Amino acid sequence: MAAVQPSDEPVAHRAGLETFENPGVTRVELTSDELTAICPLTGHPDMYVATIEYRPRRLCLESKSLKLYLGAFRNEGAFCEALAVQIRDEVADALALDAGDVTVTLRQKGRGGITITASV
Amino acid sequence: MAAVQPSDEPVAHRAGLETFENPGVTRVELTSDELTAICPLTGHPDMYVATIEYRPRRLCLESKSLKLYLGAFRNEGAFCEALAVQIRDEVADALALDAGDVTVTLRQKGRGGITITASV
Amino acid sequence: MAAVQPSDEPVAHRAGLETFENPGVTRVELTSDELTAICPLTGHPDMYVATIEYRPRRLCLESKSLKLYLGAFRNEGAFCEALAVQIRDEVADALALDAGDVTVTLRQKGRGGITITASV
Amino acid sequence: MAAVQPSDEPVAHRAGLETFENPGVTRVELTSDELTAICPLTGHPDMYVATIEYRPRRLCLESKSLKLYLGAFRNEGAFCEALAVQIRDEVADALALDAGDVTVTLRQKGRGGITITASV
Amino acid sequence: MAAVQPSDEPVAHRAGLETFENPGVTRVELTSDELTAICPLTGHPDMYVATIEYRPRRLCLESKSLKLYLGAFRNEGAFCEALAVQIRDEVADALALDAGDVTVTLRQKGRGGITITASV
Amino acid sequence: MAAVQPSDEPVAHRAGLETFENPGVTRVELTSDELTAICPLTGHPDMYVATIEYRPRRLCLESKSLKLYLGAFRNEGAFCEALAVQIRDEVADALALDAGDVTVTLRQKGRGGITITASV
Amino acid sequence: MAAVQPSDEPVAHRAGLETFENPGVTRVELTSDELTAICPLTGHPDMYVATIEYRPRRLCLESKSLKLYLGAFRNEGAFCEALAVQIRDEVADALALDAGDVTVTLRQKGRGGITITASV
Amino acid sequence: MAAVQPSDEPVAHRAGLETFENPGVTRVELTSDELTAICPLTGHPDMYVATIEYRPRRLCLESKSLKLYLGAFRNEGAFCEALAVQIRDEVADALALDAGDVTVTLRQKGRGGITITASV
Amino acid sequence: MAAVQPSDEPVAHRAGLETFENPGVTRVELTSDELTAICPLTGHPDMYVATIEYRPRRLCLESKSLKLYLGAFRNEGAFCEALAVQIRDEVADALALDAGDVTVTLRQKGRGGITITASV
Amino acid sequence: MAAVQPSDEPVAHRAGLETFENPGVTRVELTSDELTAICPLTGHPDMYVATIEYRPRRLCLESKSLKLYLGAFRNEGAFCEALAVQIRDEVADALALDAGDVTVTLRQKGRGGITITASV
Repeated sequence: MAAVQPSDEPVAHRAGLETFENPGVTRVELTSDELTAICPLTGHPDMYVATIEYRPRRLCLESKSLKLYLGAFRNEGAFCEALAVQIRDEVADALALDAGDVTVTLRQKGRGGITITASV
Repeated sequence: MAAVQPSDEPVAHRAGLETFENPGVTRVELTSDELTAICPLTGHPDMYVATIEYRPRRLCLESKSLKLYLGAFRNEGAFCEALAVQIRDEVADALALDAGDVTVTLRQKGRGGITITASV
Repeated sequence: MAAVQPSDEPVAHRAGLETFENPGVTRVELTSDELTAICPLTGHPDMYVATIEYRPRRLCLESKSLKLYLGAFRNEGAFCEALAVQIRDEVADALALDAGDVTVTLRQKGRGGITITASV
Repeated sequence: MAAVQPSDEPVAHRAGLETFENPGVTRVELTSDELTAICPLTGHPDMYVATIEYRPRRLCLESKSLKLYLGAFRNEGAFCEALAVQIRDEVADALALDAGDVTVTLRQKGRGGITITASV
Repeated sequence: MAAVQPSDEPVAHRAGLETFENPGVTRVELTSDELTAICPLTGHPDMYVATIEYRPRRLCLESKSLKLYLGAFRNEGAFCEALAVQIRDEVADALALDAGDVTVTLRQKGRGGITITASV
Repeated sequence: MAAVQPSDEPVAHRAGLETFENPGVTRVELTSDELTAICPLTGHPDMYVATIEYRPRRLCLESKSLKLYLGAFRNEGAFCEALAVQIRDEVADALALDAGDVTVTLRQKGRGGITITASV
Repeated sequence: MAAVQPSDEPVAHRAGLETFENPGVTRVELTSDELTAICPLTGHPDMYVATIEYRPRRLCLESKSLKLYLGAFRNEGAFCEALAVQIRDEVADALALDAGDVTVTLRQKGRGGITITASV
Repeated sequence: MAAVQPSDEPVAHRAGLETFENPGVTRVELTSDELTAICPLTGHPDMYVATIEYRPRRLCLESKSLKLYLGAFRNEGAFCEALAVQIRDEVADALALDAGDVTVTLRQKGRGGITITASV
Repeated sequence: MAAVQPSDEPVAHRAGLETFENPGVTRVELTSDELTAICPLTGHPDMYVATIEYRPRRLCLESKSLKLYLGAFRNEGAFCEALAVQIRDEVADALALDAGDVTVTLRQKGRGGITITASV
Repeated sequence: MAAVQPSDEPVAHRAGLETFENPGVTRVELTSDELTAICPLTGHPDMYVATIEYRPRRLCLESKSLKLYLGAFRNEGAFCEALAVQIRDEVADALALDAGDVTVTLRQKGRGGITITASV
């Protein structure tokens, strides 16, 4: 059973996630149904519904900058699972949270009848 | 990563949330799909579905006064997260409850494909 | 913040909830989407979806008598919250259960964009 | 508050629930939306959605025989609650399980606006 | 109550489930609504929605190979329950996981009004 | 085949349908899901979704007065078919239209599994 | 290509469709999702959604008698297509309408993945 | 039957509907679920779903300018019917079309259980 | 622009479509959501929803034989468009109808985000 | 009222739409919910559901090549209306049909609450 080799060159760090001071909320969920990236195996685009949930401390995520951040994946190659991990890491970093305080779930639109949902 | 500066002049305290004596219910949920406010960044209106859940003690919230209370945000600038905190605080105050006995969740209608749900 | 005065003359006790011997079920849920009553503030009808859930001991609620029981609220004035408490009390009484073994949830059809769900 | 007298002559035991050896599953749910029986009070047919959930040990329920088993209630009088208990008992018996390992839920199609869901 | 004899000749082990290194996700769910197999009793095709959920350690399942793997059941005889167990075992094996870290649920399209959902 | 005798004492003419000058629209549809009346045969309430469609000339129907007009049927006996005719006649009268310019459709909530839709 | 022989002994004429005088409606549609009959080939029950649409002249169909009329097919053998014709004929007869003024559509719940809709 | 007096001071003409050259399309439909205005009778906000359909000749409507145009009604008093006529007239004017080539339909969110749909 | 060469060896004529005498229906629609065949280009299975509508003269199509007929395409290669034509021809032949009296529509489950619906 | 200047440099002709010989179908509809392009005004991506309907003569459109054709718009700037015209023209050209035998409808995912549907 041979392991597929995923592209391991890291997608360049995406700048631009902006924040504002948390006015006191305890849980935020942001959902985008417009995330797309390129499948590294086939070169064809994949479409995702992304859900980012976090329990803020000092900072909240500004939604316009998140839109631009997610849009920047449009022409990059990424597997569903790796994309979920990268977004989780960069959002946690922007919000000065531990990775464990941010949950990212990507649901990939079905390919060949198969829908993937990956969570971190 | 620069923090966006949210408008920090406090929206004037909204009077008029009325109450009546709790006949004995243990949980009340009020939902409005007609809350709108102005985005402080763009000046455009945002639309919200607001859910207010509380575990009453002596008082219940009168629904007509809540309608008027929510309607008063129509032309004020507010971020989703700050609005959730303000409504939670003022409802808890009107009901003589601790903030922890009231949960407010605002779901903002999608902008640029991004839907925000903030809870307190 | 003035408290609204709810009508405090008690709605007359409704007779007629009939029962039969529990053949052994452990949980029963009865739902009616035809409950209506009159709003004491406006004099206009309110429409409710009522859910009655109980964990029976010796008795079960006969559904035809429940239909007639709920129908008898048609022209009486009642707030959502008080109605939930009254139904809970009278059903518990008919089934010889403690109030804690019966949960009544009323969801009031939206008025002015506001939907109320009261549980006991 | 008079108790309704349910028909207490036992519906004849239904033969024919067949089984096969459990290949290793841990939970099975069988749903039928074609169960009908006769209301003992009115003589009119009632329609049910039946859900049978069990945690198998040595045996699983063969679905064709379950279809025939449920079909045999077509012209028998039964209250929703009693029917749920009977099916639970006979399925547990066929599967050599304790009654506690089988959950049967019947949802009766609304009559007079009232929907009954009985679980064992 | 006679037990139905399921076909006990083992379906040949299916090769070809491929994997890639887990980039750090904690939960993956793969769903296919295109799984079909042949009913051993009637010889007619059955249609399934398959859900495979696992908590990865070192490896993730490559989705194209899963599609081919599931497609290979197209002309083999299998009961719903046995199929769920086989898929669970082979997926756990490919991912170097314990059987307890993989949950497989098959929902069989209704036959004679009966829908089967089997989980392992 | 005996004809059922419907109550033929005319329901008193309902006053109060108000109008305003047509600003130029060519088609108006008003829908209410809160119309209820009493079944003359059983004495039980029936629930309706009413759709009133008209092609205005000089006048349009004011919606608040329509709400009150429909609410006045709450405790009157009426068959679905007769109610549709009465509403059509009184709306046409209020709008100074021919009966043929107003279409009224009542859909009665199912009773005994039967849903009636009557149009004029 | 051999023709299947349908049972050609006529199902006994069903009495009891009652009528009332048409108050002036121009189109009536009655829908029942509780019609069941027995498949003459397999002996198993079939379930139907029946839609009866007519353009009344002097008479309308009383809905309670229709419920009883449809209920009487419960244990009779009938193909979907023949049942549609019989109901159309008997309803037209009861309403003193030409067959062409009554349309009956039966949609049979899927068997073996096949749904039949027959119209007259 | 007195006619309600609608506010007859004309809402100021709204500038800013922009256009671009029609690349050859034959039918365009624009839908907005964010139109709100103030009810002239009650002073409360009304919410609308607006559908604008036109058969373009030389020009098409630029959607961003339409968003701003519709947003400008936010704090103006208008009845549903008059609003539909005004939008139709101003859109036809911007597109250099006859009024008959533009259809505007406004569906007002239910008030007191009544939903209005006005078309021009 | 090169034309793809579809497999032009004719799929063997499928026997077995059975019929019964038309009791008088004027339109029949049969729907199956279980039709599958093999894509001649990729060798992968395609899934279809098939709708067969006909205006019967002397004969109606027996549904069990249709199920078997459709099931026989399971392992044959066929494009969506060619399959629709073949089914239309063979059904018309079995029913002794002109091709113009039978309409067949196949909706192919999406592949690469593209759904095909072919009608004859 | 100034007209917005759309980018008028023509998007390069897209090669690659492949065809096969029409086996006899009379109408084909292809739907894709994965079409995206770049808004020329904002530089942000737009998402479309594209429906292509044609009445074939000698040729049918091969669906895989259509997928690739639509995918090639991913990074090009185009207004909804112009995109509909271009796709219609190129599909008609590939199928050797008149423009009038091909209908293309693009529904653009809402931006600022506004959904555009353009048809050719």
